[in-house]
Amino acid sequence: MNMKSISYILGWILRIEAIFMALPVVTSVIYEEPEGVAYLAVMVICLLLGQLLTHKKPKNPSFYAKEGFVTTALGWIAMSLFGCLPFILTGEIPSFVDALFETVSGFTTTGASILTDVEAMSHCSLLWRSFTHWIGGMGVLVFLLAVLPMVGGSNMHLMKAESPGPSVGKLVPKVRFTAQILYRLYIVLTVLEFVLLLLGKMPVFDALCISFGTAGTGGFGIKNDSIASYSPYLQWVVTIFMILFGVNFNVYFLVYIRKFRDAVRCEEMRWYLAIIAAAIALICVNAYDLALTLENNLRNSAFQVASIITTTGFATVNFDLWPEFSRTILILLMFCGACAGSTGGGIKVSRIVIAAKAMGAYIGSFLHPRAVRRIKFEDKDVETETLRAILVYFVAVVFIFTASVLLVSLDNMDQVTNITAVAATFNNIGPGLNAVGPTCNFSGFSGLSKYVMIFDMLAGRLEIFPLLMLFYPPLWKESLAEARRRKR
Amino acid sequence: MNMKSISYILGWILRIEAIFMALPVVTSVIYEEPEGVAYLAVMVICLLLGQLLTHKKPKNPSFYAKEGFVTTALGWIAMSLFGCLPFILTGEIPSFVDALFETVSGFTTTGASILTDVEAMSHCSLLWRSFTHWIGGMGVLVFLLAVLPMVGGSNMHLMKAESPGPSVGKLVPKVRFTAQILYRLYIVLTVLEFVLLLLGKMPVFDALCISFGTAGTGGFGIKNDSIASYSPYLQWVVTIFMILFGVNFNVYFLVYIRKFRDAVRCEEMRWYLAIIAAAIALICVNAYDLALTLENNLRNSAFQVASIITTTGFATVNFDLWPEFSRTILILLMFCGACAGSTGGGIKVSRIVIAAKAMGAYIGSFLHPRAVRRIKFEDKDVETETLRAILVYFVAVVFIFTASVLLVSLDNMDQVTNITAVAATFNNIGPGLNAVGPTCNFSGFSGLSKYVMIFDMLAGRLEIFPLLMLFYPPLWKESLAEARRRKR
Repeated sequence: MNMKSISYILGWILRIEAIFMALPVVTSVIYEEPEGVAYLAVMVICLLLGQLLTHKKPKNPSFYAKEGFVTTALGWIAMSLFGCLPFILTGEIPSFVDALFETVSGFTTTGASILTDVEAMSHCSLLWRSFTHWIGGMGVLVFLLAVLPMVGGSNMHLMKAESPGPSVGKLVPKVRFTAQILYRLYIVLTVLEFVLLLLGKMPVFDALCISFGTAGTGGFGIKNDSIASYSPYLQWVVTIFMILFGVNFNVYFLVYIRKFRDAVRCEEMRWYLAIIAAAIALICVNAYDLALTLENNLRNSAFQVASIITTTGFATVNFDLWPEFSRTILILLMFCGACAGSTGGGIKVSRIVIAAKAMGAYIGSFLHPRAVRRIKFEDKDVETETLRAILVYFVAVVFIFTASVLLVSLDNMDQVTNITAVAATFNNIGPGLNAVGPTCNFSGFSGLSKYVMIFDMLAGRLEIFPLLMLFYPPLWKESLAEARRRKR
Repeated sequence: MNMKSISYILGWILRIEAIFMALPVVTSVIYEEPEGVAYLAVMVICLLLGQLLTHKKPKNPSFYAKEGFVTTALGWIAMSLFGCLPFILTGEIPSFVDALFETVSGFTTTGASILTDVEAMSHCSLLWRSFTHWIGGMGVLVFLLAVLPMVGGSNMHLMKAESPGPSVGKLVPKVRFTAQILYRLYIVLTVLEFVLLLLGKMPVFDALCISFGTAGTGGFGIKNDSIASYSPYLQWVVTIFMILFGVNFNVYFLVYIRKFRDAVRCEEMRWYLAIIAAAIALICVNAYDLALTLENNLRNSAFQVASIITTTGFATVNFDLWPEFSRTILILLMFCGACAGSTGGGIKVSRIVIAAKAMGAYIGSFLHPRAVRRIKFEDKDVETETLRAILVYFVAVVFIFTASVLLVSLDNMDQVTNITAVAATFNNIGPGLNAVGPTCNFSGFSGLSKYVMIFDMLAGRLEIFPLLMLFYPPLWKESLAEARRRKR
């Protein structure tokens, strides 16, 4: 394994994290908060360590899928370890596992919190929390690829490992330009939401944090009641932008190059919007509250459906009190997730549609055993390799989900809490039901459960395999043997 | 589609069902119960209808996978429809949907009951209930193949459609002899248990019913407290036989032809026994009851683990009161299921092991992208086609499970009840947790939910695809077009 390239890229990740930390430092200056010192200290540490690791550019350009996986997994872990330090240093989250949980929850755009009183946090920490969503949404490696000319085949492998979805859509032949375009679109949409929120008279600080949280489909609120206290207009703006950030960014690229017809024809987006519409209608009828107006009912169900399917996790109402049918729809949406190539998590609409088509084709194969059955998606044949990857992904989801629920059940909380807590972290959503419902938080779990969920959040964001690679014994055996060979 | 062959086989299924019904009729004579008349009446109807359908032997021998699927699915539905008539006629289960639920639960070896007071039933009905487990365990079509020389390719396709597991193990080249050997082994094991129960001083009637229930891994009890009131010796006998009936029958065939070494080497059996041992140990520690002896604790956990993993569903203790960790293990075992080629349900150990190996191979493929990775099971390469079938099966399980939970949630029962009710019926187990726990029953659900679970039980027993084939539009479109062509 090309360790030198890996540590070089890790160094760059730390340098970028240091730069990103300038934002909370500036915030602390504006609000005259002493907590800013902690951010400044960690910033310096990251810069120094990053400088050390990127001091010498690696000569060996060989960089394959395994290196891409390992770099991405280690990069996200390093980012989270350093990102949680300020919370500990300021004393706002004194426990290490809690601070790590909160930070991983931020970067992975989960939005599950261990804080009981969000409003007691300093402005700079609140901003950092929300900003981690924004960084993690599009990905720090994608950012790195956009700003840094990389060597060898590392571009594509890093992009593959960090981007969500069954296959990576390169918008333009060069990975670097693809990354730049993605970030440009991301920034434009974020600014658009920020401006629309300001127009609705939301305070600047709130608008910034909530725009970051929506863009990354993260879901950390800055108030104890999440989004409930904002005006209907603001809630609608957030609803629409949650849905927009769950759309495959290929669609926006097509809009950007004025191929409007192709943009509208995107099959995954159509399924995604159809599922959203159906879920909103069903919940609106099932959970209809006669004490509220039609608009209010519709707004509540639309907000919650958008929040869960895009795996954002904001809340305007305590949906834990809804009837079982509505609660079950929400649990299913948790696993469904948004589109591939968006900032949302979950299994992804395209994977589900392709898996369903594979099931249909399988039944069809008994009808015409000799016919060759191709599965079409987005007007293209799905390659056998992609199909296999999707089916294996489903199996992996089932395995990790069940193992996690089993471990978490050691805390002896009720079944629904365990299942939805794991579902909410693994799919990067945030709140679950019962003891982890929208009005509660994750502080009640044991350390073991929190580590399990930290693993789940990272596995969910990186789509399982990069993280599993770290625990794959043959990788380390071979790397050790390689290192020994080189020493001789 | 070869409709004539299909209806011919359906006719035979009814004739066989009529013969099987002689058993409750004889029971009613012994116990002088008037309910026997209902069984006699249904017996005559089945005989007449069967005679009518099998009057003319079909000439066209063409019989493919689709005919095998359709025949099996329709055969099981017909069997259940006629099998439930006696319950309605005797007035013991007056509602149609309840009677159908109970009968499907019997044939599919589920053992989920809508009865609140089992002990109020007549002896002949209790025996019929338990006997349906025995018939359904090894399969009525396998029985048909064993006794009736069939034409064309129908043998293999029927065997494939009814036998559980990812691939059918023909013990000997001829399907007919395979079916005969299977039934011979099945009868020997059942008789063995019956004798051992009698030796433990169990009444003859009880021993017969419980042997049927264990052999088919069904789980209908004949007492309101299931197996709890029997002696420890009897509970251990049932425990061991539940585990034995969950083993792949290939193993018994190998023992039968004295290939003991091959029998012991069966990979699926080893995994199966390892999972059982691990689950017993974990539950015994986690749910240890200091008020009981070590033997009692061990017996309770061993009995429950054996009962759930083999999908039998007997109970000796209210495991719904166990700690969450133990309850979660039981839920996972529900999905795990027994070995392929046994009478047990669930996903099957072999599918899970192969899927896990596929996941490992997939991770490995990133390490050595160019290496060809073969997955080995039972010392043989797993064929690509089998692997695809297993992966698609997982996807189908997830889809049917989630759709069912969603529909059942309309009844507004709690989440754990919904999830475990569907899991318990779909995997052909019987009891679930909470409102469908071992001391409760399924009578509280609405008609819709009962029909959903009837579908799930059949889908679980027939391993999904034969039943789904009935709902596959192209099949009926083509069959209609074919029929029209023939008319011209």
